[in-house]
Amino acid sequence: MVQLDDLDRAILRLLKEDARLTISEIAERLNRPESTIHFRIKKLQERSFIEKYTIVLGEQLRPKTLAIVYVQAETPIIEDFLERYIQYLMKTLSLLPNVLAVARSDKDGVVAIIGGENGEQINKFVEETIQVMPTLKRVEVFPVNEFVKGDSLAGFLVSV
Amino acid sequence: MVQLDDLDRAILRLLKEDARLTISEIAERLNRPESTIHFRIKKLQERSFIEKYTIVLGEQLRPKTLAIVYVQAETPIIEDFLERYIQYLMKTLSLLPNVLAVARSDKDGVVAIIGGENGEQINKFVEETIQVMPTLKRVEVFPVNEFVKGDSLAGFLVSV
Repeated sequence: MVQLDDLDRAILRLLKEDARLTISEIAERLNRPESTIHFRIKKLQERSFIEKYTIVLGEQLRPKTLAIVYVQAETPIIEDFLERYIQYLMKTLSLLPNVLAVARSDKDGVVAIIGGENGEQINKFVEETIQVMPTLKRVEVFPVNEFVKGDSLAGFLVSV
Repeated sequence: MVQLDDLDRAILRLLKEDARLTISEIAERLNRPESTIHFRIKKLQERSFIEKYTIVLGEQLRPKTLAIVYVQAETPIIEDFLERYIQYLMKTLSLLPNVLAVARSDKDGVVAIIGGENGEQINKFVEETIQVMPTLKRVEVFPVNEFVKGDSLAGFLVSV
């Protein structure tokens, strides 16, 4: 499927852990010449295996709690209306700073990751911002408490 | 709440966009002396506002599609059993490479972000791995199609 060898994967794993590692540090850790590492990273970037170098923000800058929200619209008689309604819903949500991610879920739904100080604040937000919208069939809020995997998700998504 | 000023925020925003920017590049863009930028970044790191420098993997390395899965356990008579069951469920899921994130959802639930080649593959995975578990009350799968916000989430979470 994808042509990456063990060395490419080892480099990507190291950069995932710490993107500030220098070429000579990576070369030393993987016991390969610097020129090889330099060439591989260049290729990984050129071929877009590395999309971006970024930072994960610390806990103080993240929302204290998260919830996943699923919203499903009533299926109307006019198909075109549903499409515009879903687009409007996604756009509206994505502009709010406490909404960390928004995606389409099938034809008639939207899923979002929402941040807040606590569960009540998120519920209040959902009631006041989402539940008030017309022609919704279903709104579900799943609180996200301790992570076992993907912990720093919020620190990646949150804006500052 | 958090003591960050406009300069700190501007630096964090630039590093979120491109964590490879040098101190002199940041200094130039923000029209401040390099020594100031150096000192600010040092402080941001020391105070854990920056948790980590990392890379986002490109599309070729990400699952083609995602789904959010919510699993709720039957509430048993013995409280302690529920706790161990949820812990077991979370642990099992988190070990699977196509499960990108796993978190507790209230006392009796688990939410996970699952990747796959397509929706059918994810559904098959949920049927064969999750639905077969005993004493489940509810299993919901929400497909995640196009993102409007938080697009590169999978490239951040996926391992290589």
